[in-house]
Amino acid sequence: MNNIHRSTSKDHNAIWAILQPTFRAGDTYAQPTDIFREEALSYWLGGHHTGYIAVEDNQTLGTYYLTPNQLGGGAHVCNCGFATAPNARGKGIARKMLAHALETARAQGYRAMQFNFVVTTNADALKIWSDNGFTEVGRLPNAFNHPTEGFVDALILYKTL
Amino acid sequence: MNNIHRSTSKDHNAIWAILQPTFRAGDTYAQPTDIFREEALSYWLGGHHTGYIAVEDNQTLGTYYLTPNQLGGGAHVCNCGFATAPNARGKGIARKMLAHALETARAQGYRAMQFNFVVTTNADALKIWSDNGFTEVGRLPNAFNHPTEGFVDALILYKTL
Repeated sequence: MNNIHRSTSKDHNAIWAILQPTFRAGDTYAQPTDIFREEALSYWLGGHHTGYIAVEDNQTLGTYYLTPNQLGGGAHVCNCGFATAPNARGKGIARKMLAHALETARAQGYRAMQFNFVVTTNADALKIWSDNGFTEVGRLPNAFNHPTEGFVDALILYKTL
Repeated sequence: MNNIHRSTSKDHNAIWAILQPTFRAGDTYAQPTDIFREEALSYWLGGHHTGYIAVEDNQTLGTYYLTPNQLGGGAHVCNCGFATAPNARGKGIARKMLAHALETARAQGYRAMQFNFVVTTNADALKIWSDNGFTEVGRLPNAFNHPTEGFVDALILYKTL
């Protein structure tokens, strides 16, 4: 069974199992590499975020969140974060989650999707966003201190829905 | 006595008195115009934010916060928000707060300051940021629904410290 659906508290262990290596690596998300489980789950699923998981053959292989990127006059633009289990990368999970997120966002009436901080060394993600019509609307000079590359730029990507 | 200093819980009423009309107007901050006091104070002073107030003649005329804009590999770039009491605008309070914030940020070791969402109709703020060396590094198309202007762009401004 292949499926992407809303997560519940029963999925927190599976989500943390994906977030932990992602955040520990420290090369894509601007989060502490020593982040605790509860901090990570709060970042991923807290506030106005809605969590989703991608399940294949009863294994949770990916997770994403969808949230308004701003409130008030900015609440028509959404933001998402995506993470795939290290042993499931290169299988198109992120692309499937993005397609699901775009469809969900449109259904919820969002007019655009924005990524606030895409590290320029994250080539795999940039390829997926570019293939799906996201354009670079901003570049933050030396905004990310990459664990091996040093200070690199981060990009702001935007797609009208 | 003119002074800009760290706020304490004793200043919450004074800060809310400034934030309330700012957020109610809904034309500069992407926050709900009907935001509650505690939500507004949590947005302004919560998380990793440090709050400051500008006091002149025993009146609190302005407030700002300083925070890392991201964590982990992005924690060397800070973010601020500024608000001035409606009856104290045009007196240079915001410029004084920005100067204080830049000095504080440098002293704390930040390498850059970023504003994530400056509405293009906010000419007073844009003039101050531009005069102080902030440059436009991003433009979010139609990202803000202005109460009278409709959908307008928002800018991302950045200054290396």
